[in-house]
Order: sequence, then C-alpha cells, then structure tokens
Amino acid sequence: MSEESTTPPEKVDALYERLDREAEASGYHLNPDREFTRGLVEGLITNEQRYGYPACPCRLATGDKQKDLDIICPCDYRDADLVDWGACYCALYVSDEVLDGQREVQSIPERRPPGGERPQGSPAHAPQQPGGEPTLPVWRCRVCGYLCAREKPPGVCPICKAKRDRFERFW
Amino acid sequence: MSEESTTPPEKVDALYERLDREAEASGYHLNPDREFTRGLVEGLITNEQRYGYPACPCRLATGDKQKDLDIICPCDYRDADLVDWGACYCALYVSDEVLDGQREVQSIPERRPPGGERPQGSPAHAPQQPGGEPTLPVWRCRVCGYLCAREKPPGVCPICKAKRDRFERFW
Amino acid sequence: MSEESTTPPEKVDALYERLDREAEASGYHLNPDREFTRGLVEGLITNEQRYGYPACPCRLATGDKQKDLDIICPCDYRDADLVDWGACYCALYVSDEVLDGQREVQSIPERRPPGGERPQGSPAHAPQQPGGEPTLPVWRCRVCGYLCAREKPPGVCPICKAKRDRFERFW
Repeated sequence: MSEESTTPPEKVDALYERLDREAEASGYHLNPDREFTRGLVEGLITNEQRYGYPACPCRLATGDKQKDLDIICPCDYRDADLVDWGACYCALYVSDEVLDGQREVQSIPERRPPGGERPQGSPAHAPQQPGGEPTLPVWRCRVCGYLCAREKPPGVCPICKAKRDRFERFW
Repeated sequence: MSEESTTPPEKVDALYERLDREAEASGYHLNPDREFTRGLVEGLITNEQRYGYPACPCRLATGDKQKDLDIICPCDYRDADLVDWGACYCALYVSDEVLDGQREVQSIPERRPPGGERPQGSPAHAPQQPGGEPTLPVWRCRVCGYLCAREKPPGVCPICKAKRDRFERFW
Repeated sequence: MSEESTTPPEKVDALYERLDREAEASGYHLNPDREFTRGLVEGLITNEQRYGYPACPCRLATGDKQKDLDIICPCDYRDADLVDWGACYCALYVSDEVLDGQREVQSIPERRPPGGERPQGSPAHAPQQPGGEPTLPVWRCRVCGYLCAREKPPGVCPICKAKRDRFERFW
C-alpha cells in the first residue's frame, strides 16, 4: 500500500460494498472507519493483481498460493482474533463490541504460527482420519441449532444473529 | 408496551428494517402485520433500555441477564414454536405457511419451562461432556449439506432455502 | 416451457430477483445470461402452478411430490454438479469459476439415479440409524468453522465466503 495507487476508486468502492454486504449478512462488520478500511480494501485488490489471490494486506505473502492459503482474506485467524481482540490482525473486521463502542481496538499480536509450524498444503486434501475424535469443539446455537467447529463460539450466530452467550458446547 | 411511548418512530423503523433483513436472509419472516410488529419491536427497544438486553416483549423479564438468557429475542423457543405453531410465542416471527396464508396463527402455549427447570447460567460455560452422545438429533439439508442440531428440522434451510421436507436425519 | 406463456413478466422478475438475492447471500450465483435464466425461472413458476411445487424445469416431473422431492429446485444434485461441472443440470446456477469466465459450461450429464434407485419418501421421516457412522464426510471451513456434510466441500463458504480450498475434512 506504500506504492503509487493505480486502482480506480470505483473498483475499491465496488469491493468495499461487496465485502460490507457479505460481512453484515453473516454477523461480521467492516471497520467503520471508512477511509482506513478503503485503504485495506485497496491492498486486497493490489494483492489479487500481484499474486492472483487477495492475500492479507498486513502480512508478507510469498506468492506461493499453497503457502499463503491461511492468510488469504478472510484469513484463518480472523475469527479467533475477533473473539479475543475485537478485531482481526489488520482491523479490517471488527466485533460487535468494537462497533458499539464498548471495546477499543488495540495492537493485535500475530497469531499465525511460524512457517515451519503451519499446516501444509490444501486442507481439503489433508483429511483428518475419519472416525477419529474431532480436535476442535463443536458449538451449537441454542436458538436455531447452527453448528460450527472452532476454539470458541462466534460473537454472533451467522444464521439467527443470537449472541455468543447463546451457544453451548455440543461435542 | 402499556407505558407512554418515548421511542422515536425512526428508531423503531431502523430496528424493524434490520430485523426484517436479517430474518429474510436466513429463511425467517417477521409478522406481515406491520403495525403489530412495530409494537413488538418497540417493546424490544424498551427492554433493551430497561434491562440492557432485548428480552422478549411478551414475557416477564427478571432483569438478571443470566436468568433471562433464554428469552432474549430471538428466544430459545422461537424455532420450535415456528415449526409446531407457525409463529413464535409473541407472533413476531411467522413461518412460511403463515406468510403464504396456508396456516393461521392461533394462541401459542408457553413452551418455556418453569424457573426451576431451566438450564442454569451461560450455556457456553456449561459444556456437555465431550465424547458423550449428543442429546439432540442432527439434521442435514440434502441440497447443500447444511447441518443443525435441533428437535425438528427448520422450515427452510437458512443456506439454500430448500424446505423442511428436504432435510434428513444425519445423526 | 414450450407452451404459450401466460406468466406476467413482473412475476418472473419478482422470482428472479428473490432467487438472485438468496443465491448471492449464500455464495451461489444465477446464470448471468439474464434472458436464458428468466426462461428457467418462468419454467419454475409454470411447474409451481401445475404441480404445486417448483420442480426442475429441465426434468420430467411426475406430479407426485414425494417422488419428485429430489428435483424440486434447488435439486438434490445442484451442489455436486456445481462442483464437478460448474453449473447445475439446467445451468440455472453456475459456479464462481464460470461466473469469472475461468470455466465454460458444457453439457452436464444427468446425475439423478434411475427411479428404482432413488431414496423413497420424505427424508425427514427416514432417519439414519442414530449412532451409526455418518455416510457422508463432514467438511469444516477453516476460517469460520462452518460445518456441512456432502461429498465435496462447497465452492464458497456460505457463511464467510472463503473459497473451497479453505475447507478441511472434519469427520
């Protein structure tokens, strides 16, 4: 993003609007600081052009898609950072609490493991042993029954918009 | 809702629009009687101001969030009532059949268990024993593969909008 | 669709808009050839009027809802065809790759099993033996934790819009 910008503003706006619509539909929120967020969206477009995929604008991509898969936006770490810090690493996405002014975004530590400790290859081709115990808890929304497998439940149910405290451990 | 209203109509309209958008996105529907529904939405705003959370406008809240968690709107009983009665206890939400005029809303019995029989505390902190048998059936949408855990499948798949009869028991 | 059309264009447009909105919200896409797609949408309306349900406009319905359940649009085969062929049997729905011009739609073979080999009756009433091994893999979105049970992961996560290569086998 330190380069001379060559992205037409309309293109930035179009992606901004799409990401905003998609975020709101599933209980996520773009950072309400529109100019800041537009800068990140422009970074996504730059990365898409440079690498062929919208790598995280706040991390250094290698250009090898398989190695960067976990930092293609939305990154594998966004949802955990939203729960723990109220924002993703870039602060492109913020939590309800941040949006409502009940929590302030501070510096967010890098959660991504060092290179050697990351899962290798495309995860769809690296199936967990079927029949083994799942390694992540499964959470259930008590309102609508939505199930998801992650360290902690989401801030808002993407289906019925009930808040985190309505989730229970299912498995 | 029997009090003098102090909620500006614009605020009621704004929440009405948000709830309507969120409902439609996931296969739910607000009651099409707009004035009736606006009254309930105003009740949610009143409860949010009074208690700090939008407790069900048709039930008596205690003001203790942990005790009222199951009746924060959407309540834990909405989806079962939509399946069995075509509307939630308040009739804020109605089913497809009711919206299409194929079913009439009648008086809906209170499904909420008496005080002593309700689950205690925040469900996220009361994990089911992992590895135990889940106590609710898991349903699978045959069209898109969506999974949810609830007594009966939803009226409409929140992902692909296939109807209830496209769900099968998965677990 | 070979009959004289009696469907008012506004009705076709209204269903078109609804299907488009619902598709986009969950990571699906209508065929961008608007006139072609309007023809299929009109076929859905015709079938709804003729049979009482929107059977696939490109297949022969029997008029017995239980027997046609798997071909009510969206059909049970749409998502697998989107993965394998980039479009559903009718080409009413197309994949991201087709929409982006990276893949061309060709003739799509019929995936529906012959009559005698189809599951009988309403699937919700034919529960799998609870406690048995699920017969389909469960996929997990590594970004948001969404779970679904299907042969292959979806092209796009319906919740967070991450692409297929972000899914891992969960069970």
